[in-house]
Formats: sequence, C-alpha cells, structure tokens
Amino acid sequence: MRFTFLGTSAGTPTKIRNVTALALQHGGPRGWYLIDCGEGTQHQLLHTRHSLVQLRAIFITHVHGDHAFGLPGLLASASMSGRTEPLPLIAPAPIRAFVETALAACDSQLGYELAFFEWGAADLVWSDAYVEVTTAPLSHRVPCVAFRFTEKNLERKLLTDQLEFDDVEPGPAWGELQRGRDVVLNDGRVLKSDAYTAITREPRCIVVGGDNDSPELLRETCLDAHVLIHESTYTQAVSNRVGPAPQHSSAEQVARFAESVRLPNLVLTHFSSRYQLSHHGAPHIDEIEFEAGRFYKGNLWLARDFDDYELGKDLILRRITPDDEE
Amino acid sequence: MRFTFLGTSAGTPTKIRNVTALALQHGGPRGWYLIDCGEGTQHQLLHTRHSLVQLRAIFITHVHGDHAFGLPGLLASASMSGRTEPLPLIAPAPIRAFVETALAACDSQLGYELAFFEWGAADLVWSDAYVEVTTAPLSHRVPCVAFRFTEKNLERKLLTDQLEFDDVEPGPAWGELQRGRDVVLNDGRVLKSDAYTAITREPRCIVVGGDNDSPELLRETCLDAHVLIHESTYTQAVSNRVGPAPQHSSAEQVARFAESVRLPNLVLTHFSSRYQLSHHGAPHIDEIEFEAGRFYKGNLWLARDFDDYELGKDLILRRITPDDEE
Repeated sequence: MRFTFLGTSAGTPTKIRNVTALALQHGGPRGWYLIDCGEGTQHQLLHTRHSLVQLRAIFITHVHGDHAFGLPGLLASASMSGRTEPLPLIAPAPIRAFVETALAACDSQLGYELAFFEWGAADLVWSDAYVEVTTAPLSHRVPCVAFRFTEKNLERKLLTDQLEFDDVEPGPAWGELQRGRDVVLNDGRVLKSDAYTAITREPRCIVVGGDNDSPELLRETCLDAHVLIHESTYTQAVSNRVGPAPQHSSAEQVARFAESVRLPNLVLTHFSSRYQLSHHGAPHIDEIEFEAGRFYKGNLWLARDFDDYELGKDLILRRITPDDEE
Repeated sequence: MRFTFLGTSAGTPTKIRNVTALALQHGGPRGWYLIDCGEGTQHQLLHTRHSLVQLRAIFITHVHGDHAFGLPGLLASASMSGRTEPLPLIAPAPIRAFVETALAACDSQLGYELAFFEWGAADLVWSDAYVEVTTAPLSHRVPCVAFRFTEKNLERKLLTDQLEFDDVEPGPAWGELQRGRDVVLNDGRVLKSDAYTAITREPRCIVVGGDNDSPELLRETCLDAHVLIHESTYTQAVSNRVGPAPQHSSAEQVARFAESVRLPNLVLTHFSSRYQLSHHGAPHIDEIEFEAGRFYKGNLWLARDFDDYELGKDLILRRITPDDEE
C-alpha cells in the first residue's frame, strides 16, 4: 500500500504546500483512491504517476473548501481525459449539491457516471476487490470522519501437504484454490479454498483522518492500524493562543494519543500556513516535529507535498521521496 | 497599465500552464482587476505581487469551468487574508448559483460583501475611479463576452497662460483644477477645470476576449484599442481536424482579424494542452506563433504563465519577464 501527499497545508495553499488531498494506491497495476480534494489537486496530480482514468473512488472527510473545492475541476478533467468508468464519490451530503451545481452552472457534462454515496456515522461505507473502507466520526466544526482502509483478498499460501494427503492432483484446481475460489473436482468432490490455503500475514491498515480536535475519538479505529495520517495544524502553544474555535489538533494532542494506543507509524499533515520551511520571523515546521517527538516514541513523519510512503507487507512504513526513484 | 497572465492553457492545466486567468493592474499603488478565474488562480497569485486584499473587481467572460472553477477558493482565501472591502463580481448569471452554492455547501462565510453584477449584452458594465469597462458579445458554446478596459481620469496639464491671462493666482486653486475639480474663488468667480487644463494623451485601452470562434465580432471594439488579448486554441490545420463544435479560434483567424483592424498589439493565449514547449511528438507552441506571424504584421506575443506586460503612456507594449525584475 502506497500513499502520496498531494497537499499538506491547512485552509489556504502556500508556495510549497497545497491544500489537502491524498492519493492511496493499492491493488492492481495503477489503481488508486483519492482522499479529499482541495483546489489544485488535479494540478498536483500532473506531477505524479496517478491518472484520473485509473482512479477507483474519491472519499471526502468533510465539506470545508480546502478539502473539496478541487472536485469540479478534477471531475471535468477526468472526463476530458477519456474516463468512461463510473466513479464512486463517498462524501457528506452537501458535497453532492456543490458538485452538481458547479457542473450544471459551468456547462460540464461528464462522460462517465458519478456515483454518490453519502457517508453516515457508522461502519462499512465502501469496498471493492482490494480495500474495505470504514469511517469513524471525528470532532470538527462540521460533520467529519476518518476513513480506515484495510486491504482485502490477501494472497493465499497453498497447504500442499493437505492437498497431497487428500489426493488432489497438482493442476488448475490448485490455482483456483489459491485464488480463494472453491473447486468442484471431476470426481464430484467439493474443495473449500479455506481448507487448503492459509493467509500468512496480517492485512495492512491505514487510517486517514479529516480535521479533528479530539484524536482520542480514533482509539478503537487505531487499535490494530499500522499507520495514522492525522492533522496537526499547530503546536500546543499556538493552539492555546488561537483558542478552541477552529477545532483543530495540536502536535502534542495527536502525539499523546498515538503513544497511548502504541501506534507504530504516525504521519502528521495539514499544517497552518504560518509554518514555513525557512522564512524570517515565521515559526518553523520543525517546532511541530519537535513537540510531537516529545510525546510519541513510534515512527514519526511530517508530510510534505509529493512525498510517497510505502507500507510493505512486512508492515514497515518507508518514505520514498521523488528523488529516490530517479 | 500592466497585466500578468495567471493561466494560458485551454480546458485543462498542464505542468507549465494553468487554466485561464489574467491580472490587470492600473491606478493606485497596487489595485488590480481579475479577468477569469480558472482553478488554481489563487495558487498562481502566490507567485505574483498581487494581493487579494487589493483586488478591485472580478470579471468572468463565460461560465466554463476552466474560466471559473477557481472562484470559491479565491473568494474564501480573500476572506481568510482579512479582506473587508466589498468585492464586485461581474459575471454571467449561473456563476452566482455556482459561487453561492459552493460557499454555502462548504460552510464558507465571507468577511466581506460579494456584489454580483450580471453582465448583459451591451455597453458599460462597470467602472470605478480608474477604469471603464464595457463588453462585446462573442460566439462560443455558451454566452461569452470580451471586456474592454479603458483608463479614466487621465492626468491634466495646467494651461498656465490662460490662468495668468485671467489673473488666477498660483496656489491651491491650481491644484484643484489640475485634479479635474471646478473651483470657486474668494472673489466669487467659478473656474471650470476643463477651461484651464488639457488632457494631452489618448486613454489606454485593452480588450480581453473570452472564448470565441468569430474574432470579427470584435471589429468595433478593437478599432481604437491598443492591445487585444485573444484565445488562439490551435492552428488552422488542427482546427480543421477538430471541427467547429468546440467554437474556438485558430491562430490564422485571430491574426487575419487583427491585421484587418490594424491592431498595434496582439497577445495570443488559451492554447490547447496538446501544445508543449518541448515534448517528443507533441506539436510545438511555435506552430501557433509561426502561423499568426504569417497573417499579422503588428506586434505579436504568445502569452506564458507569469509573464507581465506593460502598456506605457506612450502606448508601447513591453513584456517584462519575471527575470527582468530581479
């Protein structure tokens, strides 16, 4: 499972960070999922390997513009790039009105079906052959969720001792069983895939949060997750100064929570535009990292636009910067 | 009068060209006008000297997404950057539904008044202390106009011989007359500014077209204009292959028209994303320039994102590339 940050800034874009969007790639050669779609997401995608034709579904955590204003342009460009496959859009209800009005007012006809799924508060919202996606409600100024992506249909190992013991000849039946399908032999015997194969590893699981002032709401959801991607809009000191109204998390809050559930990997994102990499007088993004590091002892990352991460089958998370691949 | 291209690509953004938007600066230290607002316009502005607080008005040529999808994000960011001045938005009617639905659905409250003016087919649509803006209808798949910007309130030269002849003492009255204001002297005489001052140059005039397959519709509008900025989506050969349905102009069409009205300066923009600066196998943007140059003998430019142009009081147009200023 691999994910790429398309935007890591809160509220407004900066020169080096766009507003929120994340591409999650898993299963099949180039299929991927988009989580949130701030303005300019389609522009960011031009600098990645992801194509709008191979996009499998879009998930929106909440209605705020910095997470959703990129939808009309991205949907129109998907059509202009020749997409014909239906596209599921899993989003809160007002997003439907926004998208439909934008496309109608601006005379855009899509060459594919846009399939809206309104997320509710609970449980499974969507799945395909590769991932199962559930939601967890968060606490923000508008209804907001985290999406939990769990991989499906893990590869099976054939239990060859058992197959030989039961006199099942090597051949196409073995292949079918390994693909998870039950088989009827010529002699009439029914072989259950589950009886002759085993899944030998844990399914990978990534939780992608929306905006949220209460990370502890994710306790259940994160208990067996391998990665949490969560907003950390500012440090605790700035958060205290700003007050609770914006309903965002501080680095300290998220870090304390991640430590309390012994989360192996925490990736912080959605930084206030006041944080700069280097700008005279502006607070430095390192302040966020330093604060989080004081309270969280697992693997900590601060997201940057275009950084790629890969969660291997070994459950280890690795960062692949664009330079690594050239 | 100075203008900066914020986007020069048709339909979809490319890696080096955003979709359409143009910043026109005139009058006062940093006041400016935005013509069209494709997605990502606010991102482009981050790389210019223009601030959303000093934006005087927005003009939209037509409803298509590549000219309008950047509005909700730009309007929200203007609010977040502290704007409180009302902002006029001169646009076709459906833009109002789009913007209002987007802001409402995405829970954005603006900290300033957005003042909608629906453009009609005719004449003056808007003016302030610095410019007068009229429209000219174009021919496209949806209602579309060109905006003609003419500078107002040109500087006046005092007719000192006349003032002395009439025994008007040098002093504050001279200053008032020069500012175009009539004056009542202590002795009761009323002095008309027009009688004691002269405007010694022609007002500068720039025409900014929307999408259009019939440049000749701009004949009247362009007769005494100094600059025409017009789309040239492809060459005539590509236009013939594509057919008339998209209702765009070829380089040849625009160039022939500009030549026929002896237009001094023609800036082409809105190029199909098929044109690349250098990309193996893709047609080169030079093809557009070469074709236009065959039919137009005035000053021809092909717009690039972030290029600045200045139309001086001497009515000469100069290109200022970002490098020129560093």
